[in-house]
Amino acid sequence: MERAVDCGLFKGPFSVTFVIPLLNDGEPLSRQIYLWFRKAILRGDMKSDERLPSTREFAEHLNVSRTVVVLAYEQLLAEGFVRGRPGSGTYVTQGLQASRPSSRAGRANVRLSRFARSVAEAAPKIEVPARRATSLRYDFEYGRSDIEQFPFETWRRMLLRHARKAPVRELDYAPAGGSMALREALTAHLRRSRAVVCDPSQVIIVSGSQQALDLIARVLVERGDRVAMENPCYQGAREVLRNIGARLLPVPVDADGLNPASLPERARLAFVTPSHQFPTGAILPLARRLALLDWARRADALVVEDDYDGEFRYEEQPLQSLQGLDTDGRVIYIGTFSRTIFPALRIGYLIVPKSLTAVFTSAKWLCDRHTATLEQETLAEFIASGMYERHLRRVRRRNTSRRKVLLEAIDKYLGDRVQVTGYGAGAHVVLWPDKRIAESAALESAGSRGVGIYGISPYYLTKPARSGFILGFSRMREPDIREGIRRLSQVL
Amino acid sequence: MERAVDCGLFKGPFSVTFVIPLLNDGEPLSRQIYLWFRKAILRGDMKSDERLPSTREFAEHLNVSRTVVVLAYEQLLAEGFVRGRPGSGTYVTQGLQASRPSSRAGRANVRLSRFARSVAEAAPKIEVPARRATSLRYDFEYGRSDIEQFPFETWRRMLLRHARKAPVRELDYAPAGGSMALREALTAHLRRSRAVVCDPSQVIIVSGSQQALDLIARVLVERGDRVAMENPCYQGAREVLRNIGARLLPVPVDADGLNPASLPERARLAFVTPSHQFPTGAILPLARRLALLDWARRADALVVEDDYDGEFRYEEQPLQSLQGLDTDGRVIYIGTFSRTIFPALRIGYLIVPKSLTAVFTSAKWLCDRHTATLEQETLAEFIASGMYERHLRRVRRRNTSRRKVLLEAIDKYLGDRVQVTGYGAGAHVVLWPDKRIAESAALESAGSRGVGIYGISPYYLTKPARSGFILGFSRMREPDIREGIRRLSQVL
Repeated sequence: MERAVDCGLFKGPFSVTFVIPLLNDGEPLSRQIYLWFRKAILRGDMKSDERLPSTREFAEHLNVSRTVVVLAYEQLLAEGFVRGRPGSGTYVTQGLQASRPSSRAGRANVRLSRFARSVAEAAPKIEVPARRATSLRYDFEYGRSDIEQFPFETWRRMLLRHARKAPVRELDYAPAGGSMALREALTAHLRRSRAVVCDPSQVIIVSGSQQALDLIARVLVERGDRVAMENPCYQGAREVLRNIGARLLPVPVDADGLNPASLPERARLAFVTPSHQFPTGAILPLARRLALLDWARRADALVVEDDYDGEFRYEEQPLQSLQGLDTDGRVIYIGTFSRTIFPALRIGYLIVPKSLTAVFTSAKWLCDRHTATLEQETLAEFIASGMYERHLRRVRRRNTSRRKVLLEAIDKYLGDRVQVTGYGAGAHVVLWPDKRIAESAALESAGSRGVGIYGISPYYLTKPARSGFILGFSRMREPDIREGIRRLSQVL
Repeated sequence: MERAVDCGLFKGPFSVTFVIPLLNDGEPLSRQIYLWFRKAILRGDMKSDERLPSTREFAEHLNVSRTVVVLAYEQLLAEGFVRGRPGSGTYVTQGLQASRPSSRAGRANVRLSRFARSVAEAAPKIEVPARRATSLRYDFEYGRSDIEQFPFETWRRMLLRHARKAPVRELDYAPAGGSMALREALTAHLRRSRAVVCDPSQVIIVSGSQQALDLIARVLVERGDRVAMENPCYQGAREVLRNIGARLLPVPVDADGLNPASLPERARLAFVTPSHQFPTGAILPLARRLALLDWARRADALVVEDDYDGEFRYEEQPLQSLQGLDTDGRVIYIGTFSRTIFPALRIGYLIVPKSLTAVFTSAKWLCDRHTATLEQETLAEFIASGMYERHLRRVRRRNTSRRKVLLEAIDKYLGDRVQVTGYGAGAHVVLWPDKRIAESAALESAGSRGVGIYGISPYYLTKPARSGFILGFSRMREPDIREGIRRLSQVL
């Protein structure tokens, strides 16, 4: 459909041949003419002060309406590519061509910050885990809510009601710390279910717990600062701290979680997951919790409690949060809705000691102002109406029964060959085979049988002593759990 | 409603008197008993190995059902505060009291990072502008969309449709760079309306343009790095860069915007607002845009183009973006929907040179994974369906007519006393009074007449030479604009 017009006639008085291929490709003709001149001028093909053909002549030779050419010239004029001289025509503006290179010599040679270099180096590790190319029938995924189980009808109804009734001010900028309704609902819920002691002013709503980690790292950690980390530990926390330049000090984890006796003498802060150690699943006993707080007092350190799985405890009542035991304002509590509602919501929260509310609120405002309002208001109603706790009870019931099936199947098919940790709480367990088996080989062999399991070694800060496999159960049907473990018995 | 029970009977064999004020305050009785023991144990009022009263005796003396006491003891047991000894009763667990202080001596003595100290210092300046205590009848607010004008019915319909049809995977974690549908819709829109040249892989969806600024600062700027800033400049950019430790080099702004001749010889990057200089409103002419790109090439610097107001140009066609003129991959383009849709949506975007897409995507993933999905999908449809451009045309028409009323009123009431800048584009102008008048006095005097205007001096990096007042017009009715300016004539 090309309609190329060689306007040879204009060759004489001009420095370029006006070959403008007019294409019927959806771009208006005037825009094609405009673009042609723009490029010719910027490239220096048309020089400063060179005259453009008159619109009448040029339209005739292109065989288009004169309006088309006029429109193109007007755009060039408006943008300063050309100047009109009364009674004399249209000329290329002076001084537009400076030193535009045609080679690639001008290509930006970008120097990244240390943070960015560190991020870039770690990129393959920290990028969102790619979906498996072929999805597995028996995938023991972990770390995500069972989306299918979420009461979407109720959620959508609340969402729509809020979208409808939202007063104009709710569409405007909102407080950096988050919706007051959500902070109040959350405070009440966490007091009841996690014995978290706070008032709503200490709650900072963030865009997922990852942002909570990032804010903590930026506000409290300086390059070179010592940070005590459980070993193995949660990658999201490790990457944030590592990229900001913290010196990570691994603290060994045993069947009771982090061992406070092995905490370093000094550290700026400790990052811990007491309710369900990530990833081993150990539950930190009360005595260790108190010892950890004592250590924090002696070391004048802060403790970050990531309570990612605190809502789920089996057989016994959930242990109350570390935050609720703290009397010194040393614990920062992190929570998320990615494991109980759904990850794409991107809402999490920080509960900070009163002395730190102002600086965290300002830091959040500086980073991205505040988290989107509509979801916050919807979530506030979802919690305050009791729907959230009802949903949690339902999830807890289902997880309880899935867990039972899982543990029975492990006992039946793998009982003599593996140790199991992490089944006291949360939504995943870890299998530790007795015999030496390489994680990668086992993962591959399981995959070939349609079973998805996950190696624990990427979570270690040091070379792990043995292989381990993480198996989540919150998204699987019970028969699939049974069959998955049966197949796994051919692998481990 | 207090029902205090002095269980004097238990005084004998125990170290504490069991005075448990049982309140009918909504907390279950068993929880009150639990909390009392927990506190007594943690405070050291009850020592290691001390025996608790039997549930039967204790229930009788509290005059409550035995089940209530049993529940409290079970919780204490589950959490490890007490241990049961078969046939012998319930005892306080050993080693829980370590060194819990009753004084405030243990209070955390938190050391903030340099970033946080800088944030805390600037907090009064960077916190969300508090709403005026009494709202003003004639408030020339700026920097926000006219929310009342937004087609909410359409928006909500799309939102709900997406909430309904969202496949399960849309509730899960999503790509860090954002929804592909949105990036494609945006690429097409920006190519047409702003001559931005990119493919969707270069678009990073962020949570408002503030996050774009923050990511740029973190990825490209090191403490001590030189950054060229327009003077006056946008506070949001200044605060991010200042808090990260950049050395800000002010570049004077005149009636044509930033003067490229005054750019420093060397700088890591320059932050500019060419389509409507913030806050003066100057439009950077083509020759200066090209000179700026030339400077960037010579200085091997990057240029950040914040196109916050690029959609609105009056009388002439909008100047195309700096990004579209760049041939070296030196321009990072920032856009926002806070001024065209509504701020609480929290969606903005970055368009980065191809060489930087990977590191920016990883940095976004590290900071907060990704921006919430539902709004992204809704926005993608809103743009792709043409509703966004239709909405922009409507806003443009209204702004055109409000601007006309504003300029006429200024001419009529203030004509001989002020200069006006910034009326060629955007949604605010700046009034520069001829006579010397202190900004604070004028603001106060205007406020007492029900008129909201905004001083320009907070936006300067250096002491400003003269007073100036920012007047936004995108949220005002035309008669109010007229009356507001009439009243202002008594002030300036």
